[in-house]
Amino acid sequence: MSFVENLRRITNNLEDVMGVALAGMDGIVVEEHKRDSLIDFHVLAAEASGLMRHVDVMGESIQFGEGKELSVLASGGMILIKKVSSEYFLLMAVSSEGNYGKARYLLRREGAVLEKEL
Amino acid sequence: MSFVENLRRITNNLEDVMGVALAGMDGIVVEEHKRDSLIDFHVLAAEASGLMRHVDVMGESIQFGEGKELSVLASGGMILIKKVSSEYFLLMAVSSEGNYGKARYLLRREGAVLEKEL
Repeated sequence: MSFVENLRRITNNLEDVMGVALAGMDGIVVEEHKRDSLIDFHVLAAEASGLMRHVDVMGESIQFGEGKELSVLASGGMILIKKVSSEYFLLMAVSSEGNYGKARYLLRREGAVLEKEL
Repeated sequence: MSFVENLRRITNNLEDVMGVALAGMDGIVVEEHKRDSLIDFHVLAAEASGLMRHVDVMGESIQFGEGKELSVLASGGMILIKKVSSEYFLLMAVSSEGNYGKARYLLRREGAVLEKEL
């Protein structure tokens, strides 16, 4: 089964997107769709899965429960993470902040589709 | 020097905000302003500072540089973090997602003021 079409539906019409990946909570990439060949989703997914566990610990510390979405604005761009199930998450890198609202919308829309397919 | 007025300007007119704190990257709270007495910013700031260092590692892994802002949507609410300098960050907990845009705006506005004062 390929999830490339799901990932393409996220990257289509989104400016400055470098790529999107579906990864497991163990940090292993299931599928990726890159627009910028330089981005290494294998490295990013490994970091992101550790980060999501860290987020869960922080959420639990104030009884907010586990993390569902995470947005990071860094000097060089944005990283968005959306949990699709307890085992998988979507991971997106965008080189500017301008499309934050649309990026989040597209991740949520396709995340809901993937939740049923996984 | 008190930063309570800065924090009050963030929480004022923001629905469902549980509180906001200014904390050091070592996880120690400098000042806090709570609307919900149950929230423990000492625990949250300790978790958040560790998380921001983790975010920096993730950002560096794809040459995005260090994290400037972080938003977490959890089952029970939102946690927003905004770095004010290399040593300090603002930390906000909101019990619903409804005010995300306004929360981010208020953190940025007051973050710019604090950057000059710190």
